[in-house]
Amino acid sequence: MVERPPVWLMRQAGRYLPEYMALREKYDFFTRIKTPELACEITLQPVDIIGPDAAIIFSDILTVPEAMGLEVQMVEGRGPVLPVTVAAAKDVRHLRIDGAADRMQYVYDAIALARQALEGRVPLIGFAGAPFTLLCYMVEGQSSKAFDKARRFCYAQPLLAHQLLEAITEVTVEYLQRQVAAGAQAVQAFDSWSGLLGKEDFDRFCKPYLERIAGELQGLAPVILYPKGSWYALAELAGSGAAALGIDWTVCPVTAREWVGGKVTLQGNFDPAKLFMEPEDIRREVHRMIAQFGSQRYVANLGHGITPKVPVAHARAFVDAVKEYRPKL
Amino acid sequence: MVERPPVWLMRQAGRYLPEYMALREKYDFFTRIKTPELACEITLQPVDIIGPDAAIIFSDILTVPEAMGLEVQMVEGRGPVLPVTVAAAKDVRHLRIDGAADRMQYVYDAIALARQALEGRVPLIGFAGAPFTLLCYMVEGQSSKAFDKARRFCYAQPLLAHQLLEAITEVTVEYLQRQVAAGAQAVQAFDSWSGLLGKEDFDRFCKPYLERIAGELQGLAPVILYPKGSWYALAELAGSGAAALGIDWTVCPVTAREWVGGKVTLQGNFDPAKLFMEPEDIRREVHRMIAQFGSQRYVANLGHGITPKVPVAHARAFVDAVKEYRPKL
Repeated sequence: MVERPPVWLMRQAGRYLPEYMALREKYDFFTRIKTPELACEITLQPVDIIGPDAAIIFSDILTVPEAMGLEVQMVEGRGPVLPVTVAAAKDVRHLRIDGAADRMQYVYDAIALARQALEGRVPLIGFAGAPFTLLCYMVEGQSSKAFDKARRFCYAQPLLAHQLLEAITEVTVEYLQRQVAAGAQAVQAFDSWSGLLGKEDFDRFCKPYLERIAGELQGLAPVILYPKGSWYALAELAGSGAAALGIDWTVCPVTAREWVGGKVTLQGNFDPAKLFMEPEDIRREVHRMIAQFGSQRYVANLGHGITPKVPVAHARAFVDAVKEYRPKL
Repeated sequence: MVERPPVWLMRQAGRYLPEYMALREKYDFFTRIKTPELACEITLQPVDIIGPDAAIIFSDILTVPEAMGLEVQMVEGRGPVLPVTVAAAKDVRHLRIDGAADRMQYVYDAIALARQALEGRVPLIGFAGAPFTLLCYMVEGQSSKAFDKARRFCYAQPLLAHQLLEAITEVTVEYLQRQVAAGAQAVQAFDSWSGLLGKEDFDRFCKPYLERIAGELQGLAPVILYPKGSWYALAELAGSGAAALGIDWTVCPVTAREWVGGKVTLQGNFDPAKLFMEPEDIRREVHRMIAQFGSQRYVANLGHGITPKVPVAHARAFVDAVKEYRPKL
């Protein structure tokens, strides 16, 4: 029994922190990601400033496509751009699977450094993009409202889509295993775009790959699966071997708990836009959220990444509200 | 008892039609919308070319914000831009509610013309944006992945949000009533962004306004509510007085039917990206979809608007597949 749930924030090392923005002025995106000392420093910033119960390694889900041979440009203000995309069988054949996990040594180095720098204050969480979400970027070439091109690719060329998903999964499993070997004490797989699929297509293009990731990490570290928007899959994913499921704010906590039963921990699901409310309102809403989830088998978190311009005091109010929570008897 | 369900496509008058693209070359967006002869011609194009069971008046959901005094620029390839947005109480005060419905006379004229031109071949459907979705554009000023600014506005200034939603609803109700008076035989309210809210916030910022629209149109024409992404609201909206609920492709037809019971017609929910499959695959999937929904109290449709570049033959394959459907005994 815990008195109050643990708390961290998706993207807690991010653009709402002036200390992060100062480094962003000096170093471009890939320098920040690929320089272990910088990634370590950024990872620790929120631990010092807002005081969550875990550190999350500062990195990006597109490390994997890049390690597989696709150039990734990070255009500030616009998001990632992949000038060469995957459209046909030859593009999948040209992906570099062998050695891909090796080419992300900078992530393992950052994890090792951050583990050391944390000196046991809080655990360190690693992460990767889930295969379908990475497919979305690799096919679409940029962020998109509905990833029409990526969905079209899956429906019109399902065999090729599965080849691509297989390749991504193979690299991702090794990537996460090596993050754990380097010091990550839990890992999260972000299926940020799985909710663009209906249940049947989720079952085809997302679920088997998420299950494989959960399966291959079992016994090494707890796995958190975050299938954003895929409310319909929560009940089944509760049996995937994942330790926790992250949920977005469109799923009512009580409903989610009914669906997953006592099998897994739930993580979420504060609407990040609510961090713009006044701190006393944030506090009230956070307490209401915890009461709905229950304080057992629960990680208080946002339902998606924290957005720029959130006042730091408000992010801290969120963390503090969780820390001061005591269940009503 | 009907042998097969009726069929139409959201955005069936659109960019996948070469005949539409030819007019788009010659006339800018607002000329197409505001010239009743052009709007009428575009409305009839898909009726002739792909043969659906209804015509949908060619228009746009942003007619209402424009009639309320906000400039709307339509930037081809980027979507709508509102240079002046709603942020504070004074912005809501400055909106022009009186006479707003009158300033959309061009829509009623287009409806009257199209009704005449259709000569009873198929019924004509009118539409409007739902209040929350219009608030999204009026606050954000442009399309967006998650309308963070609009959500922030609702949470941080809920009273003002409700004032704005009231004003939009007042105009929208009159707008839809006058569309019916002009000849629309059913109307649809598009809450394209309601799914960005969790259930509690949907209940605050969407539901009462959708219910008011359904209520005020009752007895005049059947109302179709399309709360995209708001799967959690379907059961309750079944009791709103709406004749039909449109659902997107992330909701499984069988589940939706369980939730709404026999109270309303369901409309949807083919993933538009599946129109890029081969026609024989489209046909198979359409038949599977109808079997899941059941052919009674059902309108075969897409789960969202048809996208550009869909081959016309594929849109026709969708319509034909519905028309040839016969329930298995």
